[in-house]
Amino acid sequence: MTDRTTGQAGDNADRDQLDGLRPGEIAVDLPDHFDAALYYIGRIRTPWKRRDDCPKNPRESDAVCTVELDPRWVEGLAGLETVSHVVLLYWMDQARRDLVLQSPRHYAERRGTFALRSPARPNPIAVSVAKLLGVDGNVLTVVGLDCLDGTPLLDIKPYFASTDSVPDAAVGWHASRER
Amino acid sequence: MTDRTTGQAGDNADRDQLDGLRPGEIAVDLPDHFDAALYYIGRIRTPWKRRDDCPKNPRESDAVCTVELDPRWVEGLAGLETVSHVVLLYWMDQARRDLVLQSPRHYAERRGTFALRSPARPNPIAVSVAKLLGVDGNVLTVVGLDCLDGTPLLDIKPYFASTDSVPDAAVGWHASRER
Repeated sequence: MTDRTTGQAGDNADRDQLDGLRPGEIAVDLPDHFDAALYYIGRIRTPWKRRDDCPKNPRESDAVCTVELDPRWVEGLAGLETVSHVVLLYWMDQARRDLVLQSPRHYAERRGTFALRSPARPNPIAVSVAKLLGVDGNVLTVVGLDCLDGTPLLDIKPYFASTDSVPDAAVGWHASRER
Repeated sequence: MTDRTTGQAGDNADRDQLDGLRPGEIAVDLPDHFDAALYYIGRIRTPWKRRDDCPKNPRESDAVCTVELDPRWVEGLAGLETVSHVVLLYWMDQARRDLVLQSPRHYAERRGTFALRSPARPNPIAVSVAKLLGVDGNVLTVVGLDCLDGTPLLDIKPYFASTDSVPDAAVGWHASRER
């Protein structure tokens, strides 16, 4: 593991800037091989063309977005029209994968990657719950996304309140931040 | 796209049996290339060694399971101990990826892959919400999983009720089945 906040300070300060690390962020060496592979099965269309334009989280916007499924898979949508909400998995292809401690722009403290929903993670797969407005051929119309226009789609799942909804779940570090 | 339920009936009946398709299930030709790649970042330890032993869904069992994170990533857990529930992503490495219409064992009707939570899907990534009991070094103790022992781990995320919980979400085909 490479701790880029230790070692020869001058060199590392230079390297961190080159690498785009913020102060205190730590990156590790990535594994030397991949273990499995993904197909992009479609694209997500949103109003946001630059990362700075994207809402901070999916409930911040009620913009209507569309999910364009590759026609190869269209029969897989049968029955989805009866569902009120979908879980969308998509690939945040612009995120770095080696950060373990990070300082997101809008938080003061650094935290572990797995305590954050940041795009930067070993496998940059986002999970978003969206309200399904309709299905027309291979296109879904949804509300509740925050990703860039053109983001690669990985999966569509029905949202089951019985297993997916935990209204009283708490994120301690975030709650104390809001107090 | 190959519709394996049409064409020369005898041949296809034979081929379907060889392929393990149930009556009415349809498989498509997979894309000729992959688009992105995954790291396994750990393993999930559960009491279930065979698919037939697994609970039908994560709320059917209160077995305590463990999530063993590769030590490479352990600093990424900082702050996670303040979280009540986690979203776990894992790779269902034994599932076929080419089904678009399928007939799960416990449902009478066939449905589209994207209307089901079946492991068989183009990218067999499972999303499960689990109650976090504790974090000790690189090991999480959780309740609320239904997967096989040894399942490869892809990601750990904090569960935010504000964006992830939709208590009144409905899955129409499933509701009408229960009536």
